[in-house]
Amino acid sequence: MFDLGVVHTKTQRPDPEHVERLSAFGVATIHEALGRVGLMRPYIRPVYSSAKLCGPVITVLLQPGDNWMLHVAAEQVQEGDVIVAGCTTESDDGFFGELLATSIRARGGRGLVIDGGCRDTAELEDLDFPVFSRAINAKGTVKATLGSVNVPVVCANALVHPGDVVVADHDGVVVVPRDRVADVVHAAQRREDNEEAKRQQFRQGQLGLDIYSMRDSLQNTGLKYLD
Amino acid sequence: MFDLGVVHTKTQRPDPEHVERLSAFGVATIHEALGRVGLMRPYIRPVYSSAKLCGPVITVLLQPGDNWMLHVAAEQVQEGDVIVAGCTTESDDGFFGELLATSIRARGGRGLVIDGGCRDTAELEDLDFPVFSRAINAKGTVKATLGSVNVPVVCANALVHPGDVVVADHDGVVVVPRDRVADVVHAAQRREDNEEAKRQQFRQGQLGLDIYSMRDSLQNTGLKYLD
Amino acid sequence: MFDLGVVHTKTQRPDPEHVERLSAFGVATIHEALGRVGLMRPYIRPVYSSAKLCGPVITVLLQPGDNWMLHVAAEQVQEGDVIVAGCTTESDDGFFGELLATSIRARGGRGLVIDGGCRDTAELEDLDFPVFSRAINAKGTVKATLGSVNVPVVCANALVHPGDVVVADHDGVVVVPRDRVADVVHAAQRREDNEEAKRQQFRQGQLGLDIYSMRDSLQNTGLKYLD
Amino acid sequence: MFDLGVVHTKTQRPDPEHVERLSAFGVATIHEALGRVGLMRPYIRPVYSSAKLCGPVITVLLQPGDNWMLHVAAEQVQEGDVIVAGCTTESDDGFFGELLATSIRARGGRGLVIDGGCRDTAELEDLDFPVFSRAINAKGTVKATLGSVNVPVVCANALVHPGDVVVADHDGVVVVPRDRVADVVHAAQRREDNEEAKRQQFRQGQLGLDIYSMRDSLQNTGLKYLD
Amino acid sequence: MFDLGVVHTKTQRPDPEHVERLSAFGVATIHEALGRVGLMRPYIRPVYSSAKLCGPVITVLLQPGDNWMLHVAAEQVQEGDVIVAGCTTESDDGFFGELLATSIRARGGRGLVIDGGCRDTAELEDLDFPVFSRAINAKGTVKATLGSVNVPVVCANALVHPGDVVVADHDGVVVVPRDRVADVVHAAQRREDNEEAKRQQFRQGQLGLDIYSMRDSLQNTGLKYLD
Amino acid sequence: MFDLGVVHTKTQRPDPEHVERLSAFGVATIHEALGRVGLMRPYIRPVYSSAKLCGPVITVLLQPGDNWMLHVAAEQVQEGDVIVAGCTTESDDGFFGELLATSIRARGGRGLVIDGGCRDTAELEDLDFPVFSRAINAKGTVKATLGSVNVPVVCANALVHPGDVVVADHDGVVVVPRDRVADVVHAAQRREDNEEAKRQQFRQGQLGLDIYSMRDSLQNTGLKYLD
Repeated sequence: MFDLGVVHTKTQRPDPEHVERLSAFGVATIHEALGRVGLMRPYIRPVYSSAKLCGPVITVLLQPGDNWMLHVAAEQVQEGDVIVAGCTTESDDGFFGELLATSIRARGGRGLVIDGGCRDTAELEDLDFPVFSRAINAKGTVKATLGSVNVPVVCANALVHPGDVVVADHDGVVVVPRDRVADVVHAAQRREDNEEAKRQQFRQGQLGLDIYSMRDSLQNTGLKYLD
Repeated sequence: MFDLGVVHTKTQRPDPEHVERLSAFGVATIHEALGRVGLMRPYIRPVYSSAKLCGPVITVLLQPGDNWMLHVAAEQVQEGDVIVAGCTTESDDGFFGELLATSIRARGGRGLVIDGGCRDTAELEDLDFPVFSRAINAKGTVKATLGSVNVPVVCANALVHPGDVVVADHDGVVVVPRDRVADVVHAAQRREDNEEAKRQQFRQGQLGLDIYSMRDSLQNTGLKYLD
Repeated sequence: MFDLGVVHTKTQRPDPEHVERLSAFGVATIHEALGRVGLMRPYIRPVYSSAKLCGPVITVLLQPGDNWMLHVAAEQVQEGDVIVAGCTTESDDGFFGELLATSIRARGGRGLVIDGGCRDTAELEDLDFPVFSRAINAKGTVKATLGSVNVPVVCANALVHPGDVVVADHDGVVVVPRDRVADVVHAAQRREDNEEAKRQQFRQGQLGLDIYSMRDSLQNTGLKYLD
Repeated sequence: MFDLGVVHTKTQRPDPEHVERLSAFGVATIHEALGRVGLMRPYIRPVYSSAKLCGPVITVLLQPGDNWMLHVAAEQVQEGDVIVAGCTTESDDGFFGELLATSIRARGGRGLVIDGGCRDTAELEDLDFPVFSRAINAKGTVKATLGSVNVPVVCANALVHPGDVVVADHDGVVVVPRDRVADVVHAAQRREDNEEAKRQQFRQGQLGLDIYSMRDSLQNTGLKYLD
Repeated sequence: MFDLGVVHTKTQRPDPEHVERLSAFGVATIHEALGRVGLMRPYIRPVYSSAKLCGPVITVLLQPGDNWMLHVAAEQVQEGDVIVAGCTTESDDGFFGELLATSIRARGGRGLVIDGGCRDTAELEDLDFPVFSRAINAKGTVKATLGSVNVPVVCANALVHPGDVVVADHDGVVVVPRDRVADVVHAAQRREDNEEAKRQQFRQGQLGLDIYSMRDSLQNTGLKYLD
Repeated sequence: MFDLGVVHTKTQRPDPEHVERLSAFGVATIHEALGRVGLMRPYIRPVYSSAKLCGPVITVLLQPGDNWMLHVAAEQVQEGDVIVAGCTTESDDGFFGELLATSIRARGGRGLVIDGGCRDTAELEDLDFPVFSRAINAKGTVKATLGSVNVPVVCANALVHPGDVVVADHDGVVVVPRDRVADVVHAAQRREDNEEAKRQQFRQGQLGLDIYSMRDSLQNTGLKYLD
């Protein structure tokens, strides 16, 4: 695990229909449906504001200032995949740009989440190729040192296995383990249904204090109202 | 002051007409009109780019990763109010989202400034419910520990009292003490009038060196011009 | 060099036609064409998303919280110039706003890169006056301490001489030494031509592994493919 | 409040005996005794590792890169006082060094807490003059712009009034309001007594689970033990 | 995996003799012996400068501002164990202090690595109880929300399983998977033997250029020596 | 300038006697004597607290995560030299450790200032080989990509030429241009003499307000004393 210099060529992916259904939910909802785990740290941000993605993961482990393994990963991409790239250290260099995006899209890839920097961001927005990164940086990278493809990686403090599903939107990035995708779709739907009911109550001016029956526990915990 | 577990239910608010007139000015102007005090630290940023707000303050003191007091605060909101939430520690979790925004808007609230994280940012933009926060983060919060409502709080290094007026736009966030709102409106208007005159001079190509009569003091301080 | 209290009034500028041709290229391309040097650190960001600029440099060395030298610099601006401002320390205050932008534009100036803060950002976007800064901050500045104009400055870790050409876009900021502008235009054009050919190959689904003939070196370095 | 250009010359100080007794407790204990409020943000650190201080506060509001007001404050220092300096903006410059320390000590001052930078740190350690700061920085400052002395200031997100007591040690910095010093001494003592009893139990190998009777609430909240 | 509300009570530990032998090596050496993986991010630092630790891991997953699970973990500690605590979010609060250290030591525990804050640091140094943390912070925590014990956790971007061995010193923190401890001891010893030989050569003034035979590859890569 | 792939083998150094005399002064004093320029940003810190250095500079321009050029630089070191290493990007990896220190010391080198990370810090303290770095990090580096030696570099925002003199102590790092060393020695001595006189006055309880005759300018600027 976490070995360097290895490419795993067989990745089991979740049912595409489940992935499709998962893509209808936002990151905050999925994170709740998962039991409040699986979120990346919030320093990963979209490189353009409308970027969104959902798909099974090809993982990459990068070396600092070196994007060699992204080219190796491109060959492993199948229709609908998303690349998630961790790095052996903190590195904000521009590992990824428009040419790699063109390549990955041509192979069927949907986007990238990278614990590193990205460049050609205007072109990526024109292509509508969603990238979520820790930095925007024109600094180029070399192709000299081996990392790995399709090993488990830690990206922005989240553990990601090949074949997991990553979902990213303006609120952040969440990782759903492959064998939980179907469950999470159901839990997310239940949560949304429940939220819609709550939303109606809130719109009518009811308070969370009453909707969630908080008044007793607030009083028991000692909250005091003063004039 | 700064006690935990307390809700003050009586807040004196400034004259709504003064608040309305204050809302016509930008944050930079108001900060100058106040005598260059009252600014929050610039890490507080709008969660969508067109967000703007101005209104009397309901204060909240939050505990890390816990948004219980925002529900308590919602009940105290009156037409036109803005919630300003400090936290007992640095916490970037997603204390606030679309449901709470729906609730606060239904009660007449105009927006939120929070020294913490926020989620559902796309939905907040759709609602045009302005939020200024230190982070965007899908991480959910619990409801377990008491903070306070309508006590003085420090938010992003600015002291805020209930009933003060907070103004926020793309340049930052400024707090106007309740008893200075009327004065600040006048000072801001004078500043804008003065700036308009200067703007015309600058447009015609006059230099600040001459408009502000800086040449003598620059020379006296020792500035040297070399070929 | 780096003396305080000095204004150099004679700046040699590059051929305007070369600057015009350079402006057609993006920052990432120019950085590559320069041999991967000359980039500012990526914390310098545009204050509005469509900001772009290219022009010969007037340099300014600022003191913390003091924008006096920007007024001195305005007098030195000629048609097409860009101001690049370093600071003797880290300072995020709002050194620059709409009035100075109006002044500099009236003198023919095209924009600003500043290792400090900027305010009036909505107005700057309305004016389409491009500013690249380390912070957005409503905090005003004083006019009390001498810096310098048209001395070499370090801005965001890049050395900049008066008369160099600075190019900035959404990917970052790069500095081209005055005597290399013509060369860099040619190298950038060659790079773009080469990239266009590559882009076609990538679009057709060819892999970087084959286009750049990486398979042998990957194997020699020890990369292993596993089922 | 927070006005610029003002020096208040009358400061009411707490009973020196209470201050003396408070100085026997650590910052973590006092923060608990205060009800978990009053802490500065943890970026304020001692400039040498054995630094500790406790005393009534003279406040200073500084301008960025300008230490003029520290000289004004020196005149207000009485035996046992500590200076707490906030700043109108984030500024890491070296506002304070060995000469000012010599001056303040000669006036009876005990130390400094500053939301800014400090220099001459080796000399300060030799003098054993405790300073807690946000940065160590050799950068000198000017004397050009007015701040204030003995107005309420926010320092590292904590509100501080003249005459409050500040306590600082390796764990951080806490502010005790003047009228709570006596109470806090008692609460801190009770806490220490209670902790000593607990310490004995822990030393003998008893668990917090039992000492604090947590097992039931853990089970009720749903904790599951698995082989 | 990463479930909340779970305590695993059976942890397989590595051979204590292997752990003992591993403890003789520094973190940099072990990281190299592991193939340059397994390092935590460098923001984790010792709370006192001589802190060092090596031992099998009890993992804890914390909630922000809540140290309940550390008490649960204390019961699972066996002779020689080290606690490694991740957190579901970034939280610098003081989760750990001298009482918990006393408890864990009484149970045989050797130290703590925590992606959170720590307090009572002077007392921890007096006890020589090594703690490696992301912050020093007097801020207290609550006991209200479930995390987990002995699930895999990500701590400072490193994946850690219960029973892995963690080694920490002034250079950082590294995690050795349980089944690789014996191998890593051998590889570390080989590396040290090799380094001792090199050290002798360097001491005699030989250059890395010659010891590592770099001159040809430097020349082939295009390095130019100029007068 | 700033070319990659180049080693300059001829470096003009300042008079060793001047360097020796300069080494008697602290960084804050030298920075003042230089006219308040030449300081590196304060994120560069000593890796052990007693580290100090002063000497003529061998410069290195590093690539991220790659320490090849430090071996190339070692050959250029002469008795008394200090290496100053910039990097083409932000990189906190452990570029430098005890073996390289042994090599550089054997060649007569006195220490290192690096805008990157360092490891083996306990061993470096044992050797008393002073290193000033932006990070402490066990992460190893590769030897694959060319940088340069003895070109001008920017290190932590300061421009450094080969043969300049760098001085570093607990307060920071300052760069003295080669042709100003003699002047700076004199200015530093004058400053110290002057400070000694001031120190005596301060010790006797005189105030900066009087020693520096500030009372009139404070009054003229509008400072108000209130009861």
